[in-house]
Amino acid sequence: MQHGEHLAAIDLGSNSFHMVVARQAQGEIQLLDALSEKVQLGAGLDKENRLDEETQTRALECLGRFAQRIAGIPRGSVRVVGTNTLRQARNARVFIARAEAVLGHDIEIVAGREEARLIYLGVAHTLADDAGQRLVVDIGGGSTELIIGERFEPAETESLHMGCVSFAQRFFAEGNITEKAFDKAVTAARQEVLSIHANYRRIGWQQSVGASGTIKAISQVCVEQGWCDSGVTLEGLKKARKRVIKAGSADKLDLKGLREDRQAIFPSGLAILYGIFEQLGIGQMEVSSGALREGLLYDLLGRFGHEDVRDRSIQSLMNRHHVERSQAERVCETAMALFRQVAADWLLDDEPMEDTLRWGALLHELGLAVSHSQFHKHGAYLITNSDLAGFSRQEQQAVAILVRGHRRKIPQSALDELPEDEREPLLRLCLVLRIATRLHHARCDEATPGMNLKVKGNTLTLTFPEGWLDEHPLTLADLEQEQDYFQAAGCELILK
Amino acid sequence: MQHGEHLAAIDLGSNSFHMVVARQAQGEIQLLDALSEKVQLGAGLDKENRLDEETQTRALECLGRFAQRIAGIPRGSVRVVGTNTLRQARNARVFIARAEAVLGHDIEIVAGREEARLIYLGVAHTLADDAGQRLVVDIGGGSTELIIGERFEPAETESLHMGCVSFAQRFFAEGNITEKAFDKAVTAARQEVLSIHANYRRIGWQQSVGASGTIKAISQVCVEQGWCDSGVTLEGLKKARKRVIKAGSADKLDLKGLREDRQAIFPSGLAILYGIFEQLGIGQMEVSSGALREGLLYDLLGRFGHEDVRDRSIQSLMNRHHVERSQAERVCETAMALFRQVAADWLLDDEPMEDTLRWGALLHELGLAVSHSQFHKHGAYLITNSDLAGFSRQEQQAVAILVRGHRRKIPQSALDELPEDEREPLLRLCLVLRIATRLHHARCDEATPGMNLKVKGNTLTLTFPEGWLDEHPLTLADLEQEQDYFQAAGCELILK
Repeated sequence: MQHGEHLAAIDLGSNSFHMVVARQAQGEIQLLDALSEKVQLGAGLDKENRLDEETQTRALECLGRFAQRIAGIPRGSVRVVGTNTLRQARNARVFIARAEAVLGHDIEIVAGREEARLIYLGVAHTLADDAGQRLVVDIGGGSTELIIGERFEPAETESLHMGCVSFAQRFFAEGNITEKAFDKAVTAARQEVLSIHANYRRIGWQQSVGASGTIKAISQVCVEQGWCDSGVTLEGLKKARKRVIKAGSADKLDLKGLREDRQAIFPSGLAILYGIFEQLGIGQMEVSSGALREGLLYDLLGRFGHEDVRDRSIQSLMNRHHVERSQAERVCETAMALFRQVAADWLLDDEPMEDTLRWGALLHELGLAVSHSQFHKHGAYLITNSDLAGFSRQEQQAVAILVRGHRRKIPQSALDELPEDEREPLLRLCLVLRIATRLHHARCDEATPGMNLKVKGNTLTLTFPEGWLDEHPLTLADLEQEQDYFQAAGCELILK
Repeated sequence: MQHGEHLAAIDLGSNSFHMVVARQAQGEIQLLDALSEKVQLGAGLDKENRLDEETQTRALECLGRFAQRIAGIPRGSVRVVGTNTLRQARNARVFIARAEAVLGHDIEIVAGREEARLIYLGVAHTLADDAGQRLVVDIGGGSTELIIGERFEPAETESLHMGCVSFAQRFFAEGNITEKAFDKAVTAARQEVLSIHANYRRIGWQQSVGASGTIKAISQVCVEQGWCDSGVTLEGLKKARKRVIKAGSADKLDLKGLREDRQAIFPSGLAILYGIFEQLGIGQMEVSSGALREGLLYDLLGRFGHEDVRDRSIQSLMNRHHVERSQAERVCETAMALFRQVAADWLLDDEPMEDTLRWGALLHELGLAVSHSQFHKHGAYLITNSDLAGFSRQEQQAVAILVRGHRRKIPQSALDELPEDEREPLLRLCLVLRIATRLHHARCDEATPGMNLKVKGNTLTLTFPEGWLDEHPLTLADLEQEQDYFQAAGCELILK
């Protein structure tokens, strides 16, 4: 990416949608523009966890406005992520397809821990570059992230199932706020924190920092009411609690510094923060303006600068499950060499496809950590379900399906889970990876011969040097077996 | 177990059923009786992998005869295992229920690696107690096991998808044996060995030993034909190959030492052994009479002698996935204490139930190795799919369901996968484990109070010391949440 080029990040949050547009300048981010709209996506989930039509329309209209602002920024320089509500929504896929059409960019769903990592990244860039552990808290509409890190490195990332929108529905649904209901909400928040608190307190922190609109709103009230000078204090929370209970309902709240559009979710956000303060023994918290969207920009910048955190995640997954590195790298090298011979003909020569194949090749034996039997399935399970920093759910799914399909039957049903336009490309990556693993079946360092791979549609012609296959009857038998698998999937492998 | 008591093991193999009856004498096994019947279970699988009725009847008749011989040997002193055919058969569960009714003993399905381990155990006890690595090969009807070990300790266990029954159907289905078909079978066997051969040759061995009826039959032919003095040699295999091809079909085979009932599967067994010799570079192999069934007896003896290999497997799984031991042990201790208070009333006071609860408690956080989100499901996945030495599939399934059900919704659908009479007992173990994990939610060393648990059907009354719950509002909130989960599963938790 060139100096001065524009990039953008959009956060499809459960309460608000946010967009930032920035310019890259000497490896730093220069913010040009920031937009937020209170879409309340989370409140649009019905009892069956489906996004209702009205909410979808509201969201798409907002995205239409965002789209106008980022017109002209190239694909790859814009990242759009969905968080808790889109993780939950059963009809997320339909909504995402519509939203991608409006935006002209892919939307990634990120897992809770990845969300936490990105928030930390965004917040860390707003803070002084001090040594020492810091605790970062972000209360969203549907989930709350708690991260401990130092400088730009998150050490512990957690995402808890509580947010100001979901708690408002759960504890203050009728709009009435009693002392009992408020304290119940606080207890529920403490319960959520309970499972991580021993670990977090053991690690400890020197500074606690709050991010998110919810915490900023609470801070603003505390300061303007004169309850503290800056940030949030436990004393301030106690006073706010009393005022909220006294008001008896959200719409009767009369607090200095509280914006009207924040009023409805102020009590639930307060209860969550109160529970966190109590359970983690926090007395005082600073407030940062950094957030997920800035984290996305810095993460994007890292990818351009060849510090792709996703590569690190793959390496750490390989280490954790003791993948035999020599075999993984052998297969990866051959797969990439074959890919380069066919990428142009298959119109696959963009970076994401190459990345997916590389990661799939490196991880194809991951499942051996569970068992040799059906190890392609175990590998796919681990990839699908692990917390992989830097990865969206869709990216993880693509790598998982590739690993799932690298041996035995080509899994048409798994491919069918992908959006339609991604099925054929991924099938083709599968075919390449299958050939590469077959060529290294013997797991030894013997170099592969100079092969030539040509493709025409899903017919692959693999040409070996004269006589090589006759000298390698086991490889031939392997590839002949592969021919049957190809055929069953409507493809063809011709050997020469 | 007392000196002199009888014990028995039955192997429901894909080709033959075998039974041994023995007496325990000073920690050793004294064989009293051995029976084998050629049931050919594997040949009874139809194209949809269902055991046909005729084969089931034949098998049940054989088991009726076996049952007579072991009448009076107590439950727990008889082990019955099914291997490859019962691993594959889609209607295995129905057959097993019928077979258990005939035998009066539980039948365990063991995974390929567990089968390999038991074979090694059986063979090792027939060999001199020499130091040095040995390779043990067992060609079964549906799978072939290859193990490297030293003394009584297997180091590498593998089970390959090839057997003399399945290969006979695949390569010599018409009964005709051509040179081409034979060599194709050898190549297929070599292909199977190819994926393990680099690892096995790297480890190496000083002695190779064949077990199984197939290898014994080949050896007998080689010796009686005068092709070698004992065991099997590559030279002998080559001569046998020529004779088999020359005969042109299995029923025209005329070889000294070949029993008529072995004739049909002799060529396929020969091709497999030939492929193994070639691929692993074996020149000579000894033959042992030890087998799976003897391994089962020694394994059983170990359990009585408190050297239960299953406990070792649980520990090694905990290590491999970095389970936080202090928390696992805390929860386990509390779970066992609660269990002891209710086992008699629930009629659960037998050892298998206690074992299941202990293992489930130790492993309940196993899934954290994958991700915090839904970790109970990841734990269940790992337990279901890992190679756990000493465990039958059913035992693994029970522990997996227990872990699956230790938090969030009680998984009725998972419980429904169990045979009917096991559902309620396992549900009850779940309830106990759930309470234990809730009591240790804070993950600290604070002792649990002296609680009293009483049960009446699925109504549990948990009594705490006066005032304790009021002083521990988070535990109270946790248990109140648990009350809802209990209720949803048709149970009740009363707190006092």
